Amino acid sequence: MIWKKLTSPRVFGHGITMNANPYEELLEYYRETSYLEGANSILGWDQETYMPPGGVQDRALQMATIAAMIHRRTVSNELTSLLKRVKDGGLDGRSGAVYREINRGHRLARALPEEYVRELKKTTSIAQQAWAKARSDHDFASFSPHLSRIIELKKREAEYIGYEDTPYDALLDGFEPNTRTSYVTRIFHDLREKLVPIVKKITTSGVEIEDSFLRRDFPIQKQREVLTDLVTDMGYDLEHGRMDVVTHPFSTGTPRDVRITTRFDEKNIKPALFACIHEAGHALYEQGFLEEHYNTPLGEPVSTSIHESQSRFWENIVGRSLPYWRRNLPTVKRAFGNLDDVTPEMFHKAVNKVEPSYIRVEADEVTYNLHVMLRFEIETEMMDGKIETDEIPQVWNDKFEKYLGIEPPNDALGCLQDIHWSFGYIGYFPTYTLGNLYSAQFTESMISQIGELDHKVESGDLSTVLGWLRKNIHNHGKYYTADELVERITGGPLSENAFISYVKRKYTDIYGITL
Amino acid sequence: MIWKKLTSPRVFGHGITMNANPYEELLEYYRETSYLEGANSILGWDQETYMPPGGVQDRALQMATIAAMIHRRTVSNELTSLLKRVKDGGLDGRSGAVYREINRGHRLARALPEEYVRELKKTTSIAQQAWAKARSDHDFASFSPHLSRIIELKKREAEYIGYEDTPYDALLDGFEPNTRTSYVTRIFHDLREKLVPIVKKITTSGVEIEDSFLRRDFPIQKQREVLTDLVTDMGYDLEHGRMDVVTHPFSTGTPRDVRITTRFDEKNIKPALFACIHEAGHALYEQGFLEEHYNTPLGEPVSTSIHESQSRFWENIVGRSLPYWRRNLPTVKRAFGNLDDVTPEMFHKAVNKVEPSYIRVEADEVTYNLHVMLRFEIETEMMDGKIETDEIPQVWNDKFEKYLGIEPPNDALGCLQDIHWSFGYIGYFPTYTLGNLYSAQFTESMISQIGELDHKVESGDLSTVLGWLRKNIHNHGKYYTADELVERITGGPLSENAFISYVKRKYTDIYGITL
Repeated sequence: MIWKKLTSPRVFGHGITMNANPYEELLEYYRETSYLEGANSILGWDQETYMPPGGVQDRALQMATIAAMIHRRTVSNELTSLLKRVKDGGLDGRSGAVYREINRGHRLARALPEEYVRELKKTTSIAQQAWAKARSDHDFASFSPHLSRIIELKKREAEYIGYEDTPYDALLDGFEPNTRTSYVTRIFHDLREKLVPIVKKITTSGVEIEDSFLRRDFPIQKQREVLTDLVTDMGYDLEHGRMDVVTHPFSTGTPRDVRITTRFDEKNIKPALFACIHEAGHALYEQGFLEEHYNTPLGEPVSTSIHESQSRFWENIVGRSLPYWRRNLPTVKRAFGNLDDVTPEMFHKAVNKVEPSYIRVEADEVTYNLHVMLRFEIETEMMDGKIETDEIPQVWNDKFEKYLGIEPPNDALGCLQDIHWSFGYIGYFPTYTLGNLYSAQFTESMISQIGELDHKVESGDLSTVLGWLRKNIHNHGKYYTADELVERITGGPLSENAFISYVKRKYTDIYGITL
Repeated sequence: MIWKKLTSPRVFGHGITMNANPYEELLEYYRETSYLEGANSILGWDQETYMPPGGVQDRALQMATIAAMIHRRTVSNELTSLLKRVKDGGLDGRSGAVYREINRGHRLARALPEEYVRELKKTTSIAQQAWAKARSDHDFASFSPHLSRIIELKKREAEYIGYEDTPYDALLDGFEPNTRTSYVTRIFHDLREKLVPIVKKITTSGVEIEDSFLRRDFPIQKQREVLTDLVTDMGYDLEHGRMDVVTHPFSTGTPRDVRITTRFDEKNIKPALFACIHEAGHALYEQGFLEEHYNTPLGEPVSTSIHESQSRFWENIVGRSLPYWRRNLPTVKRAFGNLDDVTPEMFHKAVNKVEPSYIRVEADEVTYNLHVMLRFEIETEMMDGKIETDEIPQVWNDKFEKYLGIEPPNDALGCLQDIHWSFGYIGYFPTYTLGNLYSAQFTESMISQIGELDHKVESGDLSTVLGWLRKNIHNHGKYYTADELVERITGGPLSENAFISYVKRKYTDIYGITL
């Protein structure tokens, strides 16, 4: 019964071990920065889960202070000279990768003048409020000048960072290192050409999938128990993790404390189910780093899209497969007692129902990528100065009609649905689809090495599946770049082929039509 | 559904506003340190509440890193020169108090060489493990050399900090600024002389108090609801706070986010009830600082004992009073439905039952201070070299028998019960009793100004009570030192008189004997 803050008036931390070996010194420097990032991850988690509403201002101040310290450490001259000493000492495979990644972060952070960063922060803070109001008013015009200002700033950012082909390259690089806009454009073009006819065939097939049973009564406590079982079966380690409830699910944490979140709808089992499997997929990646590399680049995810490839693999390729529901529907049925009339086949079809819809985050696996590509196209066109922000609603609705066959009735269901742009995240959206493509391409290699996935999933042998992911992806951290990794695992560069084959096979089965 | 850490690769914080006014500059510098302390408070809270067991190592690294940054900021030459500029610019009441407190922390932190701090940290880490094992083995001898090492270090610490009379002064000062050992010794002596006969009279009175109804079935969810009502009635603001469950209750937080914790026993309503009211008392102090002073010394508690005076006031003087249970027992009865045979008078007596017992944290209000004084005496004698650590069990048991009339059957129920010494907290224990004395003395002044407390408590008018505390204590933060505060409020220095009067009056009523 003590007041915590007062009990340790003079306790303070470890000093940095001064090390004669510059590589070890660099790692130690980096680790300390990483602990601060971990602290901010947990503070961010608390903000979304348990923080009382009135704590928001204090939290913003704490996180901004820690972020400023991270930044100072990342741009410091001390780091410059440490990196130089490491490079001069000679690099091998491992230290080469560590050097490459720390140097990359250092270079990018130093590229941006402090005055620019402050302006961006101010602009996006205001833009976020403007976006929320615009969305609730269905009024894109009021948000347009804010977005326009952000695009101007992002063009400046691209100049600071530098690029070869197009300013968008510089922004994409922030989320997806070494990935060129031209490459994404080509893949997305081919993917779109193949996906649009598939969507059309499915939606005009006349096949009606019954999914109303997903919207029966599912008590939240029971959902929670079922989900805990499911994610534990995947290999998610609750000794080093936990599951909580939030409005918008996410995962976050530190190497030994990787937390997932989900949301529950008592009248619909779908949202919690797939949000949870998705986030556990993210978490398994983080739980798969090797302890010896924790808090170094070799214990960090390759990129946003590789991270997404892991969540999508578990959510869609495993979690939305028929063998998965042959295995797990009995558990679900036992928990709720109101699905006796539902077979695994029915459940599988229901959770894979294809339906063009306005909202990206609610989209099915086939149409989802069309939502993403549309945003990518608009982003690149804005950055290249080909369209102005006030043209977005028109461009959005035209593309939407062309790709998905429906037109949003208002901007809240259209170009105002996502918060990303108001945060200044230009270059983030494509990683969602790249993640889907990676997941399908990795899966082909996995199957060629461990044998058919179906049998393993149906028999509950997910540890072989996770073992493959750990060995080939998780354990390496950032040792390989995304393009090296895909080349190494699949023998070729990223392409849309595996994903298209997967979609065709899966939806031919589900819809009983030739795709 | 995004991986949190990756969404803001380049977001960082506010810069420090450079200010031509050195006082404002000093405040800004101090505030940034305070945000880091706030971050560590929340991380510490998470560690005790929701952190998965496997996260302990990561958390230790995060908190140590942040603590090191707080320390660097507290000892920095930048702060030395800022303080000098502020002083040279001239000080008034407010800036004088701010200067005094920041300078005090700066001076104390600079007094300790980094090498010493590291050694203390290492020694206490090992000592904590040794203490846990010794306690479970009932074997003080195995802990003795660790404690001996800590005492040696604490003697060194006292030399670094400096003192006039005795080394213990330097340690006491860390928790209770400006309070002399000789002063505490004198008060404690007088208090003991008066308390021991009171305890004896009560325990030999032959009066048996019935309290078995406190150990009926009290479902935890109901306890939680009742406690939420009770702390809200006290004025605890859940918009800026929350209540969670832990093993050892504490409160912590930041100005706008003050959290309390409690523990529940389904078979005993007492622990949760008084732990919760106690912690809410602490929290009300923190919630009573003025917003304009948040994150400065004027928005911080005066000292450990003044903090404790607030928790004890609410727990004992209000929460264990008859009018409080006249007011609140009906709520408790309604919630549980199994106390129909219990009157407020019975409840009041039951929660105030005096019974010499071995464990301090379970002790009643009368015997509690004897537990504390015994520890204080042993601490000062160790620091003065009058006893060696291996003599502690004997000294402890002798004193225990003398003060409380019983002798602990083993060291786990005796000198090994508290974790404090293993942390290196020498000088903390007396603040518990000082808190009790302050609370009684403040209450006399409160009553003389707002009228009898009983009527206010029974009518539920706690806002007048809280209002008085806010105006006279909370709102000032560290503006006054503890001795200035007690002089200002009560017109005299701290003494044991008010507490003894309170105890005599209260227990004469309860036990029906003349004390």
